[in-house]
Amino acid sequence: MSEKKRKMVLMVHSGTMDKLIPVFLLASTAPALDVETHLFFTFWGLNALKKGGLENAKLPEWMGLDTDMIKKRMENIKAPTLQKLLQMCVESGNVKIYACSTTMELMNIKKEELIPEVDSILGAASFLDIALDADFSLFI
Amino acid sequence: MSEKKRKMVLMVHSGTMDKLIPVFLLASTAPALDVETHLFFTFWGLNALKKGGLENAKLPEWMGLDTDMIKKRMENIKAPTLQKLLQMCVESGNVKIYACSTTMELMNIKKEELIPEVDSILGAASFLDIALDADFSLFI
Amino acid sequence: MSEKKRKMVLMVHSGTMDKLIPVFLLASTAPALDVETHLFFTFWGLNALKKGGLENAKLPEWMGLDTDMIKKRMENIKAPTLQKLLQMCVESGNVKIYACSTTMELMNIKKEELIPEVDSILGAASFLDIALDADFSLFI
Repeated sequence: MSEKKRKMVLMVHSGTMDKLIPVFLLASTAPALDVETHLFFTFWGLNALKKGGLENAKLPEWMGLDTDMIKKRMENIKAPTLQKLLQMCVESGNVKIYACSTTMELMNIKKEELIPEVDSILGAASFLDIALDADFSLFI
Repeated sequence: MSEKKRKMVLMVHSGTMDKLIPVFLLASTAPALDVETHLFFTFWGLNALKKGGLENAKLPEWMGLDTDMIKKRMENIKAPTLQKLLQMCVESGNVKIYACSTTMELMNIKKEELIPEVDSILGAASFLDIALDADFSLFI
Repeated sequence: MSEKKRKMVLMVHSGTMDKLIPVFLLASTAPALDVETHLFFTFWGLNALKKGGLENAKLPEWMGLDTDMIKKRMENIKAPTLQKLLQMCVESGNVKIYACSTTMELMNIKKEELIPEVDSILGAASFLDIALDADFSLFI
C-alpha cells in the first residue's frame, strides 16, 4: 500500500540566476508529484544561501542579458521570485536544503551568514550517501 | 522475454555548441543501445530549437576558441553536424524533443519560431514526471 | 550476502578548477562508501587529463576570483590538491578514468599527451553502456 517516496537530488554548483531558477522550479514542483527533494549547495552555489543571496543573484555577465529585464519579465508572466519559490519549498516540508561544509571552509563562510532555511551543513561523504539512492539527480 | 527499454533524460539548459555536441552525440548514439531518449530544452538551450538555432550555435566567447575552426575540425574528422545529428535522432524514432513552456513565456518565444522536430511543449511538472523514472539523467 | 557495488558516473565536460574540485572530491570519497566510480572526460574536461593539466587548471576568468588565492586557501584548510585527490582515486582501485575518443580526434590530442592514470579511451557508445546502469550520474 504505502510506496517509498521518489527522491530527487540536485547538486547546486552555480550561483547565477539562470541556474537557480530551474533548481527552485524543479524543487517547488516536486512535492506535488510526491517526490522528496534534496538540494546540496556547493562552491558558487553557496552564495545563494547567504542572507540576501537569492535577491542578489544575477545572470552571468558574458550572456549579454540584463538581470533586471529578466526579473521584470518573470513578474509579467506572474512567475514567482526565487525567494517565493524557496518559501514554497520550505512550506511543502518535502525539500531539504544542505550547505557544503568544505565550501564554507574554503570560502570562509560562517553559519550565521546563511539563511535560516538551511537544514544542515554536510560534507561530501554525507551528501553522497543521500545521493546514491536518488531516482533522479542533476548537477546544476 | 520483452524487457522495458532503458531511458535517458537530458535537461538541456545551455545553448552553446560545446554543450549541444554531447547532447546530440549521446542522443543519436542511444537508439543503437535500445535506449529511448528524452531531451528537455530550457533557458538558453531553447535557442537551439529555434529555426536556424543549431546552425548558429557558437562556442562560449570566453573560451577563446573559434567556432568556425571547430566546425572545420568536425568536418575533417567526418563528425556529423548538429543538424545531421538531430536528423539521426528523429529518424531513429527513439528520441523525444521537448521545449520548456515557462522559458517560452519568459523569452517570449512563439511556437511558430521553433523547428518542426519539437514533439511537444512541456512544463516542469510534466518533465519531472518523465524524468523521475529515467535510468540515466544529465543536466547539460 | 554479497551485494552489487553501487556505481557513480561523472561525465566531466568542464576543465576549470571549480568543476574539477567536486569531480575529484566526490570520486575520492566514493570508495569509502563502497561505490565504484567511472569518470568520463570529454571536451574541455580532457585538458585535465593532459600531462600537467591538473596543475594548470584555473578558475573561469569571468568569475573574478584568483586561482592562486583559491589554491592557497585549499592549502590553509589542508584540502588535498587535485593531483593528490587523483592519486587517492587511483590508489583506491575503485575509480576508472576514461578519455573521450571523439574529443581526442577533434582537439588533435595524442595518447602520449595524456597522464598514465587514464584507464582507457572510449567512444560515446561504450560510455553510455557503462553509464546506463549507474546509481548516480552527473554532468559536470
